[in-house]
Order: sequence, then structure tokens, then C-alpha cells
Amino acid sequence: MSTVTCQISVSLDGFAAGPNQSLDNPLGEGGERLHEWALATESWRAEHGKEGGERGVDSEVLDEVTQGIGAHIMGRRMFGGGDGPWDESWTGWWGENPPYHTPVFVLTHHAREPLTMKGGTTFHFVTDGIEAALQQARAAAADQDILVAGGASAVNQYLAAGLLDELHLHIAPVILGAGERLLTDVGQPTLEQLEVRSSPVVTHVKYRVAR
Amino acid sequence: MSTVTCQISVSLDGFAAGPNQSLDNPLGEGGERLHEWALATESWRAEHGKEGGERGVDSEVLDEVTQGIGAHIMGRRMFGGGDGPWDESWTGWWGENPPYHTPVFVLTHHAREPLTMKGGTTFHFVTDGIEAALQQARAAAADQDILVAGGASAVNQYLAAGLLDELHLHIAPVILGAGERLLTDVGQPTLEQLEVRSSPVVTHVKYRVAR
Repeated sequence: MSTVTCQISVSLDGFAAGPNQSLDNPLGEGGERLHEWALATESWRAEHGKEGGERGVDSEVLDEVTQGIGAHIMGRRMFGGGDGPWDESWTGWWGENPPYHTPVFVLTHHAREPLTMKGGTTFHFVTDGIEAALQQARAAAADQDILVAGGASAVNQYLAAGLLDELHLHIAPVILGAGERLLTDVGQPTLEQLEVRSSPVVTHVKYRVAR
Repeated sequence: MSTVTCQISVSLDGFAAGPNQSLDNPLGEGGERLHEWALATESWRAEHGKEGGERGVDSEVLDEVTQGIGAHIMGRRMFGGGDGPWDESWTGWWGENPPYHTPVFVLTHHAREPLTMKGGTTFHFVTDGIEAALQQARAAAADQDILVAGGASAVNQYLAAGLLDELHLHIAPVILGAGERLLTDVGQPTLEQLEVRSSPVVTHVKYRVAR
């Protein structure tokens, strides 16, 4: 069966985004600092159609976590477009060719027809909860893995429900002080540390979640 | 000048002790799980007068962080004995030969005469704040380093005041869900990741705090 994984950047004080998220500032104040390690890599740049970037541990980690993924799941806020019923002109933050290249199941309270983008990404809007979204993602992924892409609330919900197999954190040397807290209200899952890697700017730690 | 360091074990969700700390359960519910990595080492056992234990990365880290320390600082709750005026029969959690072997400056609101233990540990009770305690620790440490031993509140206060030079976290693969939160209300200090080491049961990350 597919492994359900999560990879997410987090501040040392446990936030996956800064405070005061908005359409102009989707990662919240200071939130972009959590992703600096990734943006510097060749892997991220190639995934976003750019040349150049660094090869190294961070690039390798990014390659690995995005490999073999057959479907993504994300929260409504990560997809963006504001709260409430959809403004159908909103097609995500990523332009016409989003960096997912698989079906993406967006958790929402508001129905919407699937949205097919370039490069193999189709956004499906799931209104009947995280288990239904996972079921659809499993069907779409076949024998590939499923990545819960974020944000913090979606990850916390899957972890709390015992539906996550692996948690891959990229711990940035950043203290945000406020924002979207990861690993809160998740009960007390048992974790096993599988792997630790680091570059000078980030610590990558991979955990298995015991069922 | 002496380096002011901190080394502390923390859960993956950011707690340095579990909820409901008490005299019977000084680390709070589940808090002992943060220290399992240390208790297994030869270093910890030798420091506490016990034989045996494991040699390896965790043991090396523990040796290094306790080396060259000329004075310790700790919060009142870490020294223990309950809140309010002192019960002078309370001489700490550690028996007659505490594992500090230096002067230890205890932050408290209640005056008390210094308490000399075996093995070179003398507890000094400082009632005029964290800066005064640091000044006394600097005088006592001479050219050796000063270790802020905990708990979370003492570490947070020194970090918030810009008085900490280095922060050495031992991140345990444990989610406590509640307790004494580290790295909260500390402002937004700038951190530089200096070193990452790991064993199968814990991730050690050392940061420099920019002044």
C-alpha cells in the first residue's frame, strides 16, 4: 500500500508559516525564511522551471522527498484564494504549470469542479473530510506514495487521525515567535527517528509514525 | 570572555518538560522520555556515580557540553523544593553530590544562604534577576564557560535578553502535547546553525545566537 508522507519546513520554534498570512504574504511574516534552504537548490529551481542552483545535501533531500509521489493532499489555505466560496478565477499560487505533476486533493468546505493545469497537475476539491481525500488520493496514486504537502493544519489533522506514515521535517534555524503551529493538537503519536541529514542552513529529520 | 551556553533536551513539539510537574514528577508527565538518550550513556552514568552505559555520539555530545563549564545557572523550579519561601531541608534533587561540580546560581525570589554540597557544587541563591546571576556566574567561572542548565523559563529569559551565546538542543523523537514550552516569548533572535549530530534516538543541533 502507498506510504502517506509529509515533508514540511518548520521554524525551530515549531511554526510552518509566520503570523498574518494574506494573499500578498501567503507564508506569513518571516515565513519565507523557512524555505530559503530549498529555494537555493537546483532541485527546487528545476521543479519551477528555472536554471542554476546548488547541488548538495539539501538538493538530494528535496529530490528524494518529491520522488515516487503519485498524489498530493493540501489544505485550502495552502491552495489559497481566500476563505469562503470559491472565486473560480483563482487557480493557485503556482501559475499554469504547478510543481506537483500529479492529482492534488484540496481539503475545502466549498465544492468546485476539478481544475486541470499544465504538466500533469489536476486540483480536486474534496468537501467530505480528510479520510475521503486520502481515499481518493490512494486511488489516484495507485502504488506510488501520497504526500501531504501542508499547511500546518492539514498535517496536524492527518497526524492526529493516525493516517500519516512518515514525517520529514526541515528544521530551519529561525525563530518566528508566532504563526501556524505544526505538531499541535495531534495527540501523542509514537515516533521513530529514521534519518538525520544537514547542511549549514537546515536540519532534515525523518520520522516514522508508529500505527 | 566566557561563552554563555545552554544545552537542553526538548520534545519535537518544543517542550522541555511535560505537563503537571510536581515534587513526585519533576519533569512532568512524559518528561523523562526527553532524557532517555542521555540516561543510556556512559557519560551521564559516570557523572552520577554509576558504572556502565553506552559510548557513542550521544556520550560524546554529553562530554563536550559539560566540559569547560565554570559555573551553572538554573531556575528555581529546576532546583526544586516547591514555590514560595524556602524549606531549608530541601537541597535539590541530586543527593549530596550533585552532578555540577561548580558554583550553581539559582534564580529565585526568596533569599537563602549558599548551600555547599559535596564534589565542588555550591548553590547560590540570586534574588536580583538574571543579569545579576550572570554577573556572579562570570566572576565564578573566570575564563571557563557558563551553562544555563534550565528549565525552559530560565533559558527563554536569557535568550530573550540577548545574553545567550550558544544554544545546544537535543531534539527527542517525542511529542508531549503540553508542558513547559522552550523558545517562546524570546523575540526573534538570529541563529546560525553550527553543528548537527545524531544517534538513532536523538538529534543534537548546536546554534550560535547572533548578538
